[in-house]
Amino acid sequence: MGESSADWAGIAWTFLAEVRRRSPLVQCITNFVSMDLMANTLLAAGASPAMLHSLQELPDFTPNADALCVNVGTLTADWLPAMKLAAELAASSGRPWVLDPVAAGASGFRLNACRELVGLKPTVIRGNGSEIIALANASVGFTKGVDSSHDSKDAVEAAKSLAQASEAVVAVSGAVDIITDGKRVVGASNGVPMMQNITATGCSVTALISAFVAVDPSRAFEATASALSIFGIAGEIGMEMAKGPASLRMHLIDSLYGLEQAPVFSCVKVSSI
Amino acid sequence: MGESSADWAGIAWTFLAEVRRRSPLVQCITNFVSMDLMANTLLAAGASPAMLHSLQELPDFTPNADALCVNVGTLTADWLPAMKLAAELAASSGRPWVLDPVAAGASGFRLNACRELVGLKPTVIRGNGSEIIALANASVGFTKGVDSSHDSKDAVEAAKSLAQASEAVVAVSGAVDIITDGKRVVGASNGVPMMQNITATGCSVTALISAFVAVDPSRAFEATASALSIFGIAGEIGMEMAKGPASLRMHLIDSLYGLEQAPVFSCVKVSSI
Amino acid sequence: MGESSADWAGIAWTFLAEVRRRSPLVQCITNFVSMDLMANTLLAAGASPAMLHSLQELPDFTPNADALCVNVGTLTADWLPAMKLAAELAASSGRPWVLDPVAAGASGFRLNACRELVGLKPTVIRGNGSEIIALANASVGFTKGVDSSHDSKDAVEAAKSLAQASEAVVAVSGAVDIITDGKRVVGASNGVPMMQNITATGCSVTALISAFVAVDPSRAFEATASALSIFGIAGEIGMEMAKGPASLRMHLIDSLYGLEQAPVFSCVKVSSI
Repeated sequence: MGESSADWAGIAWTFLAEVRRRSPLVQCITNFVSMDLMANTLLAAGASPAMLHSLQELPDFTPNADALCVNVGTLTADWLPAMKLAAELAASSGRPWVLDPVAAGASGFRLNACRELVGLKPTVIRGNGSEIIALANASVGFTKGVDSSHDSKDAVEAAKSLAQASEAVVAVSGAVDIITDGKRVVGASNGVPMMQNITATGCSVTALISAFVAVDPSRAFEATASALSIFGIAGEIGMEMAKGPASLRMHLIDSLYGLEQAPVFSCVKVSSI
Repeated sequence: MGESSADWAGIAWTFLAEVRRRSPLVQCITNFVSMDLMANTLLAAGASPAMLHSLQELPDFTPNADALCVNVGTLTADWLPAMKLAAELAASSGRPWVLDPVAAGASGFRLNACRELVGLKPTVIRGNGSEIIALANASVGFTKGVDSSHDSKDAVEAAKSLAQASEAVVAVSGAVDIITDGKRVVGASNGVPMMQNITATGCSVTALISAFVAVDPSRAFEATASALSIFGIAGEIGMEMAKGPASLRMHLIDSLYGLEQAPVFSCVKVSSI
Repeated sequence: MGESSADWAGIAWTFLAEVRRRSPLVQCITNFVSMDLMANTLLAAGASPAMLHSLQELPDFTPNADALCVNVGTLTADWLPAMKLAAELAASSGRPWVLDPVAAGASGFRLNACRELVGLKPTVIRGNGSEIIALANASVGFTKGVDSSHDSKDAVEAAKSLAQASEAVVAVSGAVDIITDGKRVVGASNGVPMMQNITATGCSVTALISAFVAVDPSRAFEATASALSIFGIAGEIGMEMAKGPASLRMHLIDSLYGLEQAPVFSCVKVSSI
């Protein structure tokens, strides 16, 4: 509590440097849309992605991964058992795992799947405001209505409530990203609006959170805020060269790959709320 | 009938402006290859893509989407029931839906699947010459052989025949795109040849047609021709900066995102045939 | 045996020119991560990709493809029968097929699947050092341990052993790519290290090998070395313009598309080992 943005800059840089140094193996069970950008985001950050989701392989593989990222984007009934088994294996092996409850409120089937996954003890949950509110409603009896404006600040209460009930760090993406462990709440305001015009940027930052948590699972709150800030800074630097969402996507990944200490220290914007 | 290219420029611009203003929710059940570019095409145009295909979710989701896009590219037996159910739900909810019969003639299984989908009353069908001819042969007894040259003009008769029998607007992509509702026939000649060296551009323009139809389902013929012309113009502008197919892909999406009224009015090439 | 790099330049250029002239149809059964880049790599080289994997379609389709590429990246139990049937159909139709045993050692399930596929007579097998060593251990009793350094030179023995037992050409990607038919061994040292920071470059060069083998199946050894060298040269040229892995990915594809004879002749680095 009470860290300044300067403190956060040092924290965020340390996480990125550790990911580059240790290249954690991050297993991703994710939707078909995001696989390419997510893998490239992890590679650009220095992590080792493994897109692997078959039930038969999980017992051999998941306990040896440094972190697991589960994203329900293109969920079907046949994928859900693998998501749940992988989450259980990660938890029982003491590995951190991160949940991205994409479109949690889009159907009863999906909301129930997300609620089941929340019950399997994710280390971090990251979504947008509507997703976190829907999940808090369904999981912990939070009763504020879904705010279609997707303003992440509107979801602070839902996030705290979900964090307290699930014991996960909860992050809400928006103009200001909100990160809470149920007690502490910080806002990270890096990034540019055009990132929302690129598919899978949300999915990809969740994977980046997984890589950051992998290198220091005991500091999931700090890892989550750091990953959101670093990804946002890569977007800000990329935006200087971008002419639209497709070139921003390219420059964002290039910037993440080449990100140096000085811009991290001058750009990180994280502060208590 | 009888609109000039100037009239069509106004029509096409109005459709794009409406998509940007209303951001229609377009559900896509599509192949694995195209998901990324398709979602980014919709986002660049101002629409809201949702890649969602699980049987369990369709009853909750599809009736609330503004349009549905079904693409059979990487078809397997387990995906077909969801494609059919989604098409039925869209039709029964009064929502437009668009079919992309990728490689319709590649196998008996695929051709039969496409024929079944045509029976579920798509609003628009878009394919290349070979696909439309194969589908017309299979669906409505059209008997001209498949022309391997893929010249869309050779498919005009097949398209008219398929449109009359299916009551769908039928579009045939090629050097000149052909659009017909069975009576009217127009040609749209925007675009550049190098777009064929980028995977999923055909799939993506079908999704763009879905977004255009979503904002005015009663004018599916105009929406289809407009989407094909606008996507082609984005390719033309992108081509000015491209050094090959990968940079063209990027510049095309950037150009679609930033497309202004003046180049639309000066570039639209649509005329009666 | 005994070709100089100059000889190899002529061989490599001839393969690329033939792919451009004949546009072979390359069927790909591949992982979800690589489909987009793989299809774009094949298109940039002048080949015709077909991402098609449904059991129902294989008997109609595979015997008419010019080559088949099987990649086990996101393997699940329900995909394996299609991979095996397609391999059998390719072999029985006299068509070349190429295996990419991604992460062969990641699980017992995966290693066994790869071993079964090796038994179906692939024309070429391409992997990194760890994959080829794992496969040689499992398939032919090769007993050297997996070298986590991924240095392809360490895998030369494993590759020769696997090639002799399987009668496939075996390629090992690394700082120097190794290609062997069990007797001859050449090294190809084109490419740049940053290509490893882009997901699916390995998968994509395997697809390019498939296209090269398609135009002259009797010279699989030469086709494999040529494809690896050409892809590497495209990366070298792309690297001159790249600012990071995402822009390298774009420039690599653009360079492959536009590659001319002069840089091929001046850049090919293939020599006997």
